[in-house]
Amino acid sequence: MAQLRIALAQVNATVGDLDGNAALIDAWTRRAHDAGAHLVVFPEMVLTGYPVEDLALRESFAVGSKQALTTLAAQLDEAGCGDVASVVSYLDRDEAGPRDAVAVLHGGRVVATQFKHHLPNYGVFDERRYFTPGQTLDILRVHGLEVGMVICEDIWQEGGPIAALGEAGVDLIVAPNASPYEREKDDVRLPLVARRADEATAPLVYVNLVGGQDDLVFDGDSMVVAADGTLQTRAPRFVEHLTVLDLDLPAGAARTEGTVGEFTVTRRTLHADPLPRYEPLPTPEKAAPLPELAEVWAALVLGLRDYAHKNGFRSVVLGLSGGIDSAVCAVLAVDALGAENVHGVSMPSAYSSTHSRSDAQELAERTGLPYQVQPIADMVATFTAQLGLTGVAEENVQARCRGVTLMGLSNQHGHLVLATGNKTELAVGYSTIYGDAVGGFAPIKDVPKTLVWELARWRNEQGGKPPIPANSISKPPSAELRPGQVDTDSLPDYELLDRVLDDYVEGDRGYADLLSAGFAPKLVDRVLRMVDAAEYKRRQYPPGTKITFRAFGRDRRLPITNAWREGK
Amino acid sequence: MAQLRIALAQVNATVGDLDGNAALIDAWTRRAHDAGAHLVVFPEMVLTGYPVEDLALRESFAVGSKQALTTLAAQLDEAGCGDVASVVSYLDRDEAGPRDAVAVLHGGRVVATQFKHHLPNYGVFDERRYFTPGQTLDILRVHGLEVGMVICEDIWQEGGPIAALGEAGVDLIVAPNASPYEREKDDVRLPLVARRADEATAPLVYVNLVGGQDDLVFDGDSMVVAADGTLQTRAPRFVEHLTVLDLDLPAGAARTEGTVGEFTVTRRTLHADPLPRYEPLPTPEKAAPLPELAEVWAALVLGLRDYAHKNGFRSVVLGLSGGIDSAVCAVLAVDALGAENVHGVSMPSAYSSTHSRSDAQELAERTGLPYQVQPIADMVATFTAQLGLTGVAEENVQARCRGVTLMGLSNQHGHLVLATGNKTELAVGYSTIYGDAVGGFAPIKDVPKTLVWELARWRNEQGGKPPIPANSISKPPSAELRPGQVDTDSLPDYELLDRVLDDYVEGDRGYADLLSAGFAPKLVDRVLRMVDAAEYKRRQYPPGTKITFRAFGRDRRLPITNAWREGK
Repeated sequence: MAQLRIALAQVNATVGDLDGNAALIDAWTRRAHDAGAHLVVFPEMVLTGYPVEDLALRESFAVGSKQALTTLAAQLDEAGCGDVASVVSYLDRDEAGPRDAVAVLHGGRVVATQFKHHLPNYGVFDERRYFTPGQTLDILRVHGLEVGMVICEDIWQEGGPIAALGEAGVDLIVAPNASPYEREKDDVRLPLVARRADEATAPLVYVNLVGGQDDLVFDGDSMVVAADGTLQTRAPRFVEHLTVLDLDLPAGAARTEGTVGEFTVTRRTLHADPLPRYEPLPTPEKAAPLPELAEVWAALVLGLRDYAHKNGFRSVVLGLSGGIDSAVCAVLAVDALGAENVHGVSMPSAYSSTHSRSDAQELAERTGLPYQVQPIADMVATFTAQLGLTGVAEENVQARCRGVTLMGLSNQHGHLVLATGNKTELAVGYSTIYGDAVGGFAPIKDVPKTLVWELARWRNEQGGKPPIPANSISKPPSAELRPGQVDTDSLPDYELLDRVLDDYVEGDRGYADLLSAGFAPKLVDRVLRMVDAAEYKRRQYPPGTKITFRAFGRDRRLPITNAWREGK
Repeated sequence: MAQLRIALAQVNATVGDLDGNAALIDAWTRRAHDAGAHLVVFPEMVLTGYPVEDLALRESFAVGSKQALTTLAAQLDEAGCGDVASVVSYLDRDEAGPRDAVAVLHGGRVVATQFKHHLPNYGVFDERRYFTPGQTLDILRVHGLEVGMVICEDIWQEGGPIAALGEAGVDLIVAPNASPYEREKDDVRLPLVARRADEATAPLVYVNLVGGQDDLVFDGDSMVVAADGTLQTRAPRFVEHLTVLDLDLPAGAARTEGTVGEFTVTRRTLHADPLPRYEPLPTPEKAAPLPELAEVWAALVLGLRDYAHKNGFRSVVLGLSGGIDSAVCAVLAVDALGAENVHGVSMPSAYSSTHSRSDAQELAERTGLPYQVQPIADMVATFTAQLGLTGVAEENVQARCRGVTLMGLSNQHGHLVLATGNKTELAVGYSTIYGDAVGGFAPIKDVPKTLVWELARWRNEQGGKPPIPANSISKPPSAELRPGQVDTDSLPDYELLDRVLDDYVEGDRGYADLLSAGFAPKLVDRVLRMVDAAEYKRRQYPPGTKITFRAFGRDRRLPITNAWREGK
């Protein structure tokens, strides 16, 4: 048996910020060192942020990443942390191309390097575009324990490096990850990590990134699972967190090196022998699972906050219509940035109801956000009169005058504009391009309308004064672009619509499958036509946090020019 | 020796239009049959259009594609064309996943099937996301000749299927392609095709798609190259074209079948013996190479026309500022759609020069396009007064009132709005989001400013009345958003700027390389900061025809949230 104190550094890195991320790794390694840790594990590509997209192909960036890594190794040693083995993932580049890499820093040097083997190229991932897969495995002997390394997707696939490490013999596996949040009814990660620990017959240390990056949010959820699949500890989600855990493991699993399956295994010894026995720390608590709506809310808040802050915005501006979507966006922004940084604008037109203003005002009062009223009647009248606009053209001008108003306030005062559309609207094109669709970020872009209501009710129940006016939740939704208009004039009932969309967009099901699921042919025809025809609008929509299995954007890539019609 | 009459069907397919594309294949196979052809070759994925993007993953679409293929085979036989071997590429799907496939139709049936082996996953291509690579090669005996098949990327890579066909022994190779246009100073395709013919020691029949699909345009340029690399015939570019050519080849190269390298080779006999000798047709002419500017112009016209027509638009509307960008866009639209379908709108503000209106009007007169003037002073005044806008906020409101005007006219009259920005502006963010950036399509999105001028001069020299006013070409460019403003107030000289952008955007070079290229550090700093900061605007920009090696959009994928600064 050998003891080892490990630290899981669940940190929030920023894409491209080599200096800032190096400083972050430095600070957290010191924290781990101060806590007596012997090994500290950071998330995937912590030094560069993740995903770096085409920066992976730029040679100057890879050179910068490698330089930052060696500088960091020296700096940690100078700071007296050289005896901690620090597992730092970064962008490498060699004669075979760019690499999603992990290095071990120890004694001021890079003592081991390994490249990701399985490269995901589905969903939001394009890693075959960027990286050359690794075929080598470096196994470190740390205080008598054989420690193997894998990166993210390597644990999502059977066989490959996990199986090879199991065959070669390791006492412990560490796995840096950058695994984006996706709403799940069941816990997928723990059973997966447990299966891989079992496959390798070794405990597995899973460390995931936390933080927002454009349309992705990483949720943390770092954990340690024993060789028998038992959960040892689990970090809280959506926050930075350092977990320090003492392990006491059977040592000396080393059986082979050289060629194992398709891999070349090299063993590197940092310390041959186990540490003298020491008194372990109490095992840290396992973070309680988050209820589903709390989890989604936390993801949306973090995604919005990081998009704003990482892009240099302290404040946002958004239109408040009195409806549920803008109310939920406003409260998300309040939770993310503080009420004083959320500027709400009511922009009534000739067709706006009295409650559109009173509900918006009540929201402002309940949350304490700065609020102003900017009627758009004069602006709209100038366009419609001069251009002779009627019907849909007139409806759209109202939405666009609101867009110009918000952008004007953004330009004048430096606020980030939030687009308040939900996923259901985006799916069926129920929005005005350059109107309500303007914005730098769209907080509920991937939230179906029915989930918007659920979130509103949930948020109002979280103690304190309920922020969202009851009337905004209960009244029938309306775009208020003509007298007496309600959404159901143009759209099916939202409960039904969201079920069709879930099957068509998330499930990618065809016409026959949708009919088998019990939907009426006319409804399916109508919804699918709307979704297909709105692709051009989605292409120009701002980014927003992905929370579903298949978000619009890089997760679902369809041509605009597309004559395919299901069921035709 | 054996004779064979082959037809190269360089056609314009539409993504998703299985019925329309099948009708196209039917019609062109009949044309080939009427010309006495024994073998007709269509471009890659002609039955589905290319690229189908995530439609490749939808099971119902693959089922539709396979059904359309078998229906087509039967239909051709019923029409008396069953004796022509028709090489039709389509989307297949088997237990291993979706396939980029090619089938041979003959006698009413699918007599051979093969899958693409090399899957490009760089630039605009994501084929590892979609397809499972093929490991089998079907070789057909057609009138005594052994005919092998490869698909597109298979000829861009050394080794693989081409080498295997060479080793197995073939008399002829046919290669369906969907290879998008990219501006090139030198002819890349012919030497490549010649090298592959040499590698396989067999003539190669290269058939490429023609037509626009969102931001791609396919240029045709189909050709036949002899085994010794000699060009036999070459089709004109940017137009549909049927090339019919008589071959007279050494027959009986068949040496092996079964396993060849990593491939399983199967030989299928349609006709064991050569045809009786017949009188060959005269060899069709080789299309003359297009001069560089003619080539770019043709690409832009075709890209714009197909985007409009394939999305159901007969007419466009665009702002005419009197400047060079809007003038070139208008003339491209006139060439693509006819002057009567191009609606020009002059939208003068308080800061507009006299020549902005007179040059716009002169353009309208020279081309004959319908023209109207919509002053924006009243609209702008309403916003600036009510919202208290000054400085950049006031400048942007002018651009946005123009955007709302164009969208209003679009909604009222059903025209497609064209955004008139060029690649240089898009690179440095010299445009107003939701202002001059509004539009369904951006014809010169990928054309650097200096090339816009070259194209304008070239187009004016093509006979007839020069469409573009001389003053629009010669005057210093200005956004006219404040008094006396010219672009060089905010931007470096365009000649210099385009050279930096060519190195940074197309060349993906880092800071050190840019300094080595002789650019001043301050200039490099300034330009790179502008490019990096404008990513968010590019994400919401409309699609436009790719003509350069690296277009903005799916060709260059950078994060918005990105702290990496070259040279920092």
